[in-house]
Amino acid sequence: MDKKLIGVDLGGTTIKFAILTNNGEIQQRWAEDTNILDDGSHIIPDIIKSINHHLNLYHMKPEQFAGIGMGSPGSVNQKDGSVVGAYNLNWRKPVFPRRDIEEGTGIPVFIDNDANVAALGEKWKGAGDNASNVAFATLGTGVGGGIIVNDQIVHGAAGAAGEIGHIIVERHGYRCTCGNNGCLETVASATGIVRVARDLAEEYAGNSSLKRLLDAGEEISAKIVFDLAKKDDPLAVRVINRICDYLGYALANISNTLNPDFVVIGGGVSAAGDLLLNKTTEAFEESAFPSVRTSTKLRLASLGNEAGVIGAASLIVQ
Amino acid sequence: MDKKLIGVDLGGTTIKFAILTNNGEIQQRWAEDTNILDDGSHIIPDIIKSINHHLNLYHMKPEQFAGIGMGSPGSVNQKDGSVVGAYNLNWRKPVFPRRDIEEGTGIPVFIDNDANVAALGEKWKGAGDNASNVAFATLGTGVGGGIIVNDQIVHGAAGAAGEIGHIIVERHGYRCTCGNNGCLETVASATGIVRVARDLAEEYAGNSSLKRLLDAGEEISAKIVFDLAKKDDPLAVRVINRICDYLGYALANISNTLNPDFVVIGGGVSAAGDLLLNKTTEAFEESAFPSVRTSTKLRLASLGNEAGVIGAASLIVQ
Repeated sequence: MDKKLIGVDLGGTTIKFAILTNNGEIQQRWAEDTNILDDGSHIIPDIIKSINHHLNLYHMKPEQFAGIGMGSPGSVNQKDGSVVGAYNLNWRKPVFPRRDIEEGTGIPVFIDNDANVAALGEKWKGAGDNASNVAFATLGTGVGGGIIVNDQIVHGAAGAAGEIGHIIVERHGYRCTCGNNGCLETVASATGIVRVARDLAEEYAGNSSLKRLLDAGEEISAKIVFDLAKKDDPLAVRVINRICDYLGYALANISNTLNPDFVVIGGGVSAAGDLLLNKTTEAFEESAFPSVRTSTKLRLASLGNEAGVIGAASLIVQ
Repeated sequence: MDKKLIGVDLGGTTIKFAILTNNGEIQQRWAEDTNILDDGSHIIPDIIKSINHHLNLYHMKPEQFAGIGMGSPGSVNQKDGSVVGAYNLNWRKPVFPRRDIEEGTGIPVFIDNDANVAALGEKWKGAGDNASNVAFATLGTGVGGGIIVNDQIVHGAAGAAGEIGHIIVERHGYRCTCGNNGCLETVASATGIVRVARDLAEEYAGNSSLKRLLDAGEEISAKIVFDLAKKDDPLAVRVINRICDYLGYALANISNTLNPDFVVIGGGVSAAGDLLLNKTTEAFEESAFPSVRTSTKLRLASLGNEAGVIGAASLIVQ
């Protein structure tokens, strides 16, 4: 019988687990809170304990599994399976999840960063239709991404491939946390959308609920901007047009380089749905090379929260 | 004994041939004129005749070769080995070089388009140092490119990957032959450089040899502009700064997506040498994500005309 897979999606607040068939069908799922106390030193032991406990519970043995796949925040070194820079886990020093979890469970471990793993999930079982070439952009607090070429995740020379959020879309644009100006993240992340809304509101004089909210000092969010745009609030429409224009432009330039089968848009902001997709596609089509325009398709992510565990599991079988 | 390789670089005016070791060392080289008469129908028979003639000459047999690799203009279908859209060869209908040359020589044939093949050549034996991830930009009459990721050429969904010349660097820039505006090719090709020179000359009032040449209606070239910039002609310097700024920006955005080990700049314009490389690197560093800036290096191509036959031969062994 084919061996099963374990997918682990390690995040700053929860750790999601799943047991999957080697076709990527989820058979069991559970979650644990992430305990980031004591420099995050409980996290790896907690993962080991939780896996061993659940295997026990389901009367399963390590030999029945082809591996454990894991997505982690931070920067993953593929050579030694270590993780650095996972600040939301309080990991201040390099951590060795691959070595430690293999030791603690007796199951081989495969690890990559969370954006790459989500990209693999959407490629394998989501909007990517298991095509060989998929670019994935995740719009959340920041903008991240994962690039799959010839069925493989692209890591690049120093693991910095897929930094879609730092493609520069406006050369004299807003200052980014990375130190450059005009990165896609400064406008197309949840915080970026709010920033653009505030700026466009300043020069806007017409009738707009969004303008009134901002003038009244209310806290707004990307969701509020999208919701108002769906109700044809003129300022909100203007903001969303601007955001989608930048996003479509960036995705077109990625596609002019890679001609992926699909560009999948995920992350919290993608909950805005068809409005986001349609306007971004319009801008994409304006900037895409003709044969790219007809062969690369933009899509919304379809797996939601499960992209992580599914993509993590795919590390084992790819 | 290891089998040898044959590399064929098919161009609009000459066809270059080489016999190489399986390590990519050229042992023999020769060339034929490209006969594009009669809808280019002589080209494939000429290639077959030339290969068979030279094997005879060198007392070699088809069994001594692992394959023939060929770079062709136009769009190559990897499934059936056909070529379409090679207008400079007068091929108006699909042509089947793989099938026909295999039949005519008794040697397996591998084929890809000329920009991809040049990229593979520079990766294998040139400025790419045989690294796994190399982006190649060729600046000539147009701007082309080839992208190598995880040691494989990227073709994409419809073979349109590597269209680096159609990355948009100026959203309301010059109209491109592709129908879009502001493509890199409109400014960084040999003709693009002249176009930028003419435009900047119009608004330039100072003392400049370039300005005088243009005002006198002299024909200028990209080479003249670079040569004058090397002599500190102020308008020429301004033109080259503008060009390299666009080029560095485009290469940075490619690198923010792919983090290649090397970005190699080739083609006729790259003869401008260090001036081009240094100014482009400056602009690249301004727009590259910090960890990309430190791990992706820009280099000038080093193989010159031999990138084609070497890269073509690499198709056989990759």
